[in-house]
Amino acid sequence: MTTRTDATFFPPIPEAQRWLKGVTFPEDRPLLNLAQAAPADPPPAPMLAAMSDMLGEADSHLYGPVLGRPDLRVALAADWSAHYGATLGPENVAITAGCNQAFAATLSALTGEGDEVLLPVPWYFNHKMWLDMSGVRTVPLPCTDALIPDVDAARARITPRTRAIVLVSPNNPTGVEYPADTLRALHDLCRETGVKLIIDETYRDFDSRTGAPHDLLRLPDWDKTLIQLYSFSKAYRLTGHRVGAIIAAPDLLHQIEKFQDTVAICAPSLGQKAALWGLTHLGDWKADQRQEILQRRAALAEAFAPLEHKGWRMRGLGAYFAYLEHPFAMGAADLAPLMVQKVQALILPATMFTPAGDASGDRCLRVAFANADAARLRTFVSRLEQLDLPPLAPPATPA
Amino acid sequence: MTTRTDATFFPPIPEAQRWLKGVTFPEDRPLLNLAQAAPADPPPAPMLAAMSDMLGEADSHLYGPVLGRPDLRVALAADWSAHYGATLGPENVAITAGCNQAFAATLSALTGEGDEVLLPVPWYFNHKMWLDMSGVRTVPLPCTDALIPDVDAARARITPRTRAIVLVSPNNPTGVEYPADTLRALHDLCRETGVKLIIDETYRDFDSRTGAPHDLLRLPDWDKTLIQLYSFSKAYRLTGHRVGAIIAAPDLLHQIEKFQDTVAICAPSLGQKAALWGLTHLGDWKADQRQEILQRRAALAEAFAPLEHKGWRMRGLGAYFAYLEHPFAMGAADLAPLMVQKVQALILPATMFTPAGDASGDRCLRVAFANADAARLRTFVSRLEQLDLPPLAPPATPA
Repeated sequence: MTTRTDATFFPPIPEAQRWLKGVTFPEDRPLLNLAQAAPADPPPAPMLAAMSDMLGEADSHLYGPVLGRPDLRVALAADWSAHYGATLGPENVAITAGCNQAFAATLSALTGEGDEVLLPVPWYFNHKMWLDMSGVRTVPLPCTDALIPDVDAARARITPRTRAIVLVSPNNPTGVEYPADTLRALHDLCRETGVKLIIDETYRDFDSRTGAPHDLLRLPDWDKTLIQLYSFSKAYRLTGHRVGAIIAAPDLLHQIEKFQDTVAICAPSLGQKAALWGLTHLGDWKADQRQEILQRRAALAEAFAPLEHKGWRMRGLGAYFAYLEHPFAMGAADLAPLMVQKVQALILPATMFTPAGDASGDRCLRVAFANADAARLRTFVSRLEQLDLPPLAPPATPA
Repeated sequence: MTTRTDATFFPPIPEAQRWLKGVTFPEDRPLLNLAQAAPADPPPAPMLAAMSDMLGEADSHLYGPVLGRPDLRVALAADWSAHYGATLGPENVAITAGCNQAFAATLSALTGEGDEVLLPVPWYFNHKMWLDMSGVRTVPLPCTDALIPDVDAARARITPRTRAIVLVSPNNPTGVEYPADTLRALHDLCRETGVKLIIDETYRDFDSRTGAPHDLLRLPDWDKTLIQLYSFSKAYRLTGHRVGAIIAAPDLLHQIEKFQDTVAICAPSLGQKAALWGLTHLGDWKADQRQEILQRRAALAEAFAPLEHKGWRMRGLGAYFAYLEHPFAMGAADLAPLMVQKVQALILPATMFTPAGDASGDRCLRVAFANADAARLRTFVSRLEQLDLPPLAPPATPA
């Protein structure tokens, strides 16, 4: 017998955390944990004060509507409408217990056993895991050297069983911000072929570009093709409160209500109220956070540049992530746990984001740099420099 | 194309709430909402104070381990060990975002497409919905007139595709507390046939019986067959914080970690801390709550007794629920929405808990009585008495 969970792999983050078991770190070389894309600090003090007040309100502790609190749905629709020049209403918004759940719920309303979904490689592992557990075949979609999904390759992979193309932009794990043109081309391909385009914008608030990252939500019939996913976790430091969102057609959200009722009943009420408070009060604070992360990104890029002469290569950089190609004669799956011992850094191998046997998985590492300030990022790079391992042999010269 | 959500029905609670749309109630006859099994009040003041302190702790706002906070897993294992005379450890406990999620996660690790699960009729609708969405065939298991699952009928329905029998005790929707003998017989049947026995004890804390409701957790190899589900929502008034639990074999929980990581990442951290605080501080308070609900139960039974002469029948009563058979010449699915208008009461028809075409579904109604105090329950019964509808014709006398 094969169960749903038999069909997929064990989650990478807990696996990586197990590499730390029993390892002690010298006092002057503490662990640099750059594995998980999560703020390490609590929400800012004014939000904590607001949440304390919320504890005195009964509805913070009670069930709310399955698709989310109406006030939060209204506010998120207004926020997205303003940012994207769109005209969304609360009927286009569902609130979920985090963005992973937003993905699972959406896929449950789009796919059945044996369907197919295209994921660009490298992919976000939880997307792959949910497709596996849902009986949906993941079709790997190649990217260009710049780690942008290849539109022609997507077209060639669409079959009668294809239900969706799923994008994450800014991307996890690569950090790459997908150009508006690419999103438009993939949208048009999806519309033409009757496939849904899902864009997960969990890292939207840390995009280095100003303004809307695409104009798809301004299309009059956007909701026939496009579904957007969002998370309040990163922007407002609410990871532990589990609040995310889906932006889609009302009919689709009505179907999604079945999944949400059955798996969640509702997203946590206090978290929803905190998200609403953040959305309406923390605009400036969020802008400062974005600037801070952009500065960290610049610091990492600057510190890393000399490593490019030693065979390292920065393949992607943005939002929370850097995607590094390493120069060593070993696979990333072996290198990453070794780095805990050798350089006191916890980062994830690209093999956790790629199909089995994919060569790029062996060569790359994901660094969730946004958790570390500029000084710690410089420390991280200096430790990488000290890594003394056999280099990959250069390509053989033809005889 | 058929999607996962196409395979199931729309959730009953939101559907019932739609019956209220546009209905106004006389000032002297406000709505009696007895539809949802959820406390209507926030947690007690000391817990609110403790939660306010928790807001000052960073880990209340951050991701926690996928299978739950270690301190809560330890405490729940100790609590269940004490109550059941068992020797559970934290490795037997996983924390989920509510008991619905506990069920979904458990089933994902037990079943694949085309498998079968036995559910006693009437069943809990979200269990049926998850099985539908998982591609698992629900095999209806008949109950006795006392609404106890029929063990022989279960045996006759087990096939090579059967993966589990799922029980809810005290039961939702009937309120019936399953006898220990029945649980033992079903356990032994499951063990003999290699099927899992899942017992959802969401309403455990309101059982009218004292002591352990069964001795299955004392069996040395209990975890080869038994899985228990629990909710902190009802006992500690934490519905909006989404905290539930699974008690099972460590190997199974390791598989379940895949589902939890992908659909939830973790249960809400603040809710988990509140649950732990409740578990360690609210024993006496919870006992008082139980007494209050038992008094409400007694008040409802007493008030209802005269209705038995008018063709009504109380089929089940316990924990949060009464399961009433009505005397009218119409199906419950039509009667329940009519009752909003006629007697200003929102309760659910048994058709929401039974297979299509099941005759008992037409005859019965579920009343979530625990939300209402004794005075309101008497009001409810007096309104039922006023219901003036054509009675069901008595069975025809043979000519």
